[in-house]
Amino acid sequence: MLPKSQLQFIKSLHQKKFRKEHGLFIVEGLKSITDFFYSDHIIHSIYSIPKVEPKIDIFGKKIKHYPISDRDLQTISTLKTPQGMLALVEIPNRRHFDKGGLRNQYSIVLDTIQDPGNMGTIIRTADWFGVRHIICSPETVDIYNPKVVQATMGSLARVSVLYTDLRPFLKDIQLPVYAAVLNGESIYKTDFGTEGLIVLGNEGNGISADLTGKETKPVTIPSFGNAESLNVAVSAAIFCSEISRKR
Amino acid sequence: MLPKSQLQFIKSLHQKKFRKEHGLFIVEGLKSITDFFYSDHIIHSIYSIPKVEPKIDIFGKKIKHYPISDRDLQTISTLKTPQGMLALVEIPNRRHFDKGGLRNQYSIVLDTIQDPGNMGTIIRTADWFGVRHIICSPETVDIYNPKVVQATMGSLARVSVLYTDLRPFLKDIQLPVYAAVLNGESIYKTDFGTEGLIVLGNEGNGISADLTGKETKPVTIPSFGNAESLNVAVSAAIFCSEISRKR
Repeated sequence: MLPKSQLQFIKSLHQKKFRKEHGLFIVEGLKSITDFFYSDHIIHSIYSIPKVEPKIDIFGKKIKHYPISDRDLQTISTLKTPQGMLALVEIPNRRHFDKGGLRNQYSIVLDTIQDPGNMGTIIRTADWFGVRHIICSPETVDIYNPKVVQATMGSLARVSVLYTDLRPFLKDIQLPVYAAVLNGESIYKTDFGTEGLIVLGNEGNGISADLTGKETKPVTIPSFGNAESLNVAVSAAIFCSEISRKR
Repeated sequence: MLPKSQLQFIKSLHQKKFRKEHGLFIVEGLKSITDFFYSDHIIHSIYSIPKVEPKIDIFGKKIKHYPISDRDLQTISTLKTPQGMLALVEIPNRRHFDKGGLRNQYSIVLDTIQDPGNMGTIIRTADWFGVRHIICSPETVDIYNPKVVQATMGSLARVSVLYTDLRPFLKDIQLPVYAAVLNGESIYKTDFGTEGLIVLGNEGNGISADLTGKETKPVTIPSFGNAESLNVAVSAAIFCSEISRKR
């Protein structure tokens, strides 16, 4: 049995404030934990119920492993139905971000995405299409929010996400910038080159008016029906698909 | 003030059992209610707080309107942050479904989609791309679930959804059937004609093994990265986009 203080410590990581303070976040389920295990993330500790075996060589990496009861797992889990295994993973330090690392590929820029499910789905979709970098405004939902981590289905282990003030970032960047808007050129006719950035805006308000300059190319997913707009994760996916198709 | 019995009646519609019993479901927010107002749905009654005016001619249609308090709205609302206005809408009778109505267009077939957010996003995306019909297995999440209604952003007013046993439905249908799978022909190379059905499967298990026959064309969204799969609403969107692009 885990001491109560340790259970409370893990439970505190459900909140952003404590994740930031301790530099740790929660990953649940063998599949996702395995994805983090085989990435450059550092796993701090693993907690599993008796019937779920960690099928990864945690001993080789000297990761602390705590067998726990169903009841304790229920206490520390962020899920209604816990998946038998939970890990604490160190939040990587991304302060030394190299803009040159964005050349010869497409990256996604997110302006104030609020919904954790949308954020997680965008990361998962980016991973499917080989997009390696996502750059977010500081107001965008925390990627270590348990709902985001869960929705990425392990893809968070492979996609790098940077939070930064988007105005100076977009001003300095030497790459073509495409903005997902409602009144631009058709995405099907847009000639995407070999590198660039796709900017997607907030669920309710779109892209901040002062964020994109006259260098930005407005691009639209044409509508054939009556919906007012598309979900932002859906828009991101259609952009990824079109860019991949044309490559 | 509304009598307590009426508040309890509306609150009971949060549950599928009572929606079915009374043939009513809840729609919230002026935008969505307006979408249903201008569709062939019948609005049973509208409830709004003093500062939110129904900007639609509800009196012309003789719809009962109840001004209510913030507190009463909080009681009957399905949202954490109610949007000032709530309507009860009659569940339409779709028993007389004409298969001939699926010719010369694309429709979506859903095998046991579980997540309300995914379901709502698929309906919203269908509406964007002009897909008018969705056919679901009986095990698929209820479209009148408040989370589904909310995620459709009013598009549920325009897209027709039928629940039916998919085995006889797909056996009898005289249309090309495409299945979204992980090991089929590339969607970018698939020659979609002018009509057909796209079958998408459950979030965890995909399409039921015995559902599609040898006539079905397996189609895949090619991966350029490492994610194991795509979210089902994202897959649906990329299929809609590709079919629209090729038309």
